[in-house]
Amino acid sequence: MPQPTAAMLVIGDEILSGRTRDSNMYYLAGELTRHGIPLTEARMVSDDQASIVAAVTALRAQVTHVFTSGGIGPTHDDITADAIAVAFGVGIGVRDDARALLAAHYARSGLEFNAARERMARIPDGAVLIDNPISAAPGFSMGNVHVMAGVPNIFQAMLASVLPTLTGGQPLLSQTLQVNRGEGEVATPFGALAAEFPDLSMGSYPFIRNGAFGTNLVIRGTDGAQVDAAMARLVALFGHP
Amino acid sequence: MPQPTAAMLVIGDEILSGRTRDSNMYYLAGELTRHGIPLTEARMVSDDQASIVAAVTALRAQVTHVFTSGGIGPTHDDITADAIAVAFGVGIGVRDDARALLAAHYARSGLEFNAARERMARIPDGAVLIDNPISAAPGFSMGNVHVMAGVPNIFQAMLASVLPTLTGGQPLLSQTLQVNRGEGEVATPFGALAAEFPDLSMGSYPFIRNGAFGTNLVIRGTDGAQVDAAMARLVALFGHP
Repeated sequence: MPQPTAAMLVIGDEILSGRTRDSNMYYLAGELTRHGIPLTEARMVSDDQASIVAAVTALRAQVTHVFTSGGIGPTHDDITADAIAVAFGVGIGVRDDARALLAAHYARSGLEFNAARERMARIPDGAVLIDNPISAAPGFSMGNVHVMAGVPNIFQAMLASVLPTLTGGQPLLSQTLQVNRGEGEVATPFGALAAEFPDLSMGSYPFIRNGAFGTNLVIRGTDGAQVDAAMARLVALFGHP
Repeated sequence: MPQPTAAMLVIGDEILSGRTRDSNMYYLAGELTRHGIPLTEARMVSDDQASIVAAVTALRAQVTHVFTSGGIGPTHDDITADAIAVAFGVGIGVRDDARALLAAHYARSGLEFNAARERMARIPDGAVLIDNPISAAPGFSMGNVHVMAGVPNIFQAMLASVLPTLTGGQPLLSQTLQVNRGEGEVATPFGALAAEFPDLSMGSYPFIRNGAFGTNLVIRGTDGAQVDAAMARLVALFGHP
C-alpha cells in the first residue's frame, strides 16, 4: 500500500490579516507525522466561497486526506459547510442528528438554542459527523475531507476523534544534529551523504544565535536502522549530537 | 487603481513536518496589512521542484505580488532558485554581481568562499537582486515573485528592502470588540450590522478562556470613518470596548 498523504486548508481572514498566528497547522503537522501520514501541502484562504471551493477541489485530488479548520460557527462569515457542499456538488440542510446534539448541549448549559446556533447543524448531504466534546457543534467528514473547527482546543479534540479512524502509514522518524557552523561549510559533505541514502530525506536549517551562525541537520525516514546509520555517519563528519 | 493583493509561498519540509512553526507568514501578513497590500492566500509546500513550480505559477497569476521564503541556501535541499527559473521558463547561472557580494562577505568574515557557498549566486536570468544585510546571499525579484530567505531575521531584512519599492494600497484598518458571550448569542445582530456596511469586512473569532466562551468581533476596512461608525454601533449593541 502506498504511504497515505495529507493536506491542510486553514480557512479565515484572521490568519491572513496577521491578527492571529496559526496554531492548528502546526499541531496537525506534528500529529500526522507521528501517525505516518505526511503533510505535503498547506493552504490558507480567506472567508470567500470561490477560494475555499477551489482549494478543496485541488487538494482532495492530490492527497489521501484533507483537513480543514475554521468557518463552521454560527456567524455570517462562517461559510465552510456551504462551500464544501458546493465543492462536492451536493445539497446542504439542517440535519436532525446534528440538531439534536446542539439542542441537548444548550438545554444542559441553559443557553438559548436560537436560529444562529441552529445554523451549525447545517451539514452537506452524505457527510459523517465528527464529535465535538467541547461545544457540541459537530465537524464532519465528506469523502476524504475532514472539516473541523478553528478554535484550537476544539480542533484538537475533533482531530483526536478522526485520526484513529484513518489508516496510518509508517511513522516518519527524524533525528537532528546541531552544528555551530554555517550551512556553507557543511553543504558539500552533507549533500554527498544525502546522495548515499536515497530512501532518507535530509534537510539543513540554518539559524542565527547570539550573532553566530549554526545549522540543524535533520535526517528523516521511516526505516529506523537507516536513520541511525546515517546519523552515525553525520556525527563522524561533524561532531557529536 | 485596484487595491494590490499578495500571496505567500513558504517552501520547506521543516514547516510541514511540524518540526518548526512558521513565523514568516505571520510577520509578512502584519507588514502587508500595514502597507495596504492584503494577503489573500498562503501556501506551504515541501522541497520538491514540481510542487514549487505549480504553486508559483498559480499564485503569480492570481495576485499582484508573491513572496516566497526558504530554499535559497547552499545545501542540496535548497532548490527554490532553480524552481523559479523553471516556473518562468528562463535560464539560471552564477551571476557576477551576486558572486561579488558573496566573495566580499566571506573575505570580510574570514570564512572560505567554497563551491557550496557560490551556489547562492545562482540567479534566474533577468531577476533583480534583493539585498541581504545579514549574510550577503541575496534574494531576488523575478517578475512579481519576490524570493527571500527562510531564516526569520534575514526574511525580515529582505522584506524591509522590497516593501518600499512596491506600490501600496490604502492600509486596512481594524478594530476589535471582545465580548464575554458565545458567538451564537451575537451572530444574528452582528450579521445584520455586517449587511448594513457592505464596504467593511466583519469577522467573529470565538475563544475559550478559563472554561468560558468569548468572542472577538473584528471590523476591518480602509475607510476609518466607516470603521468608527460601525464600531460605535457594535459597542451600543454589545457593551464597551
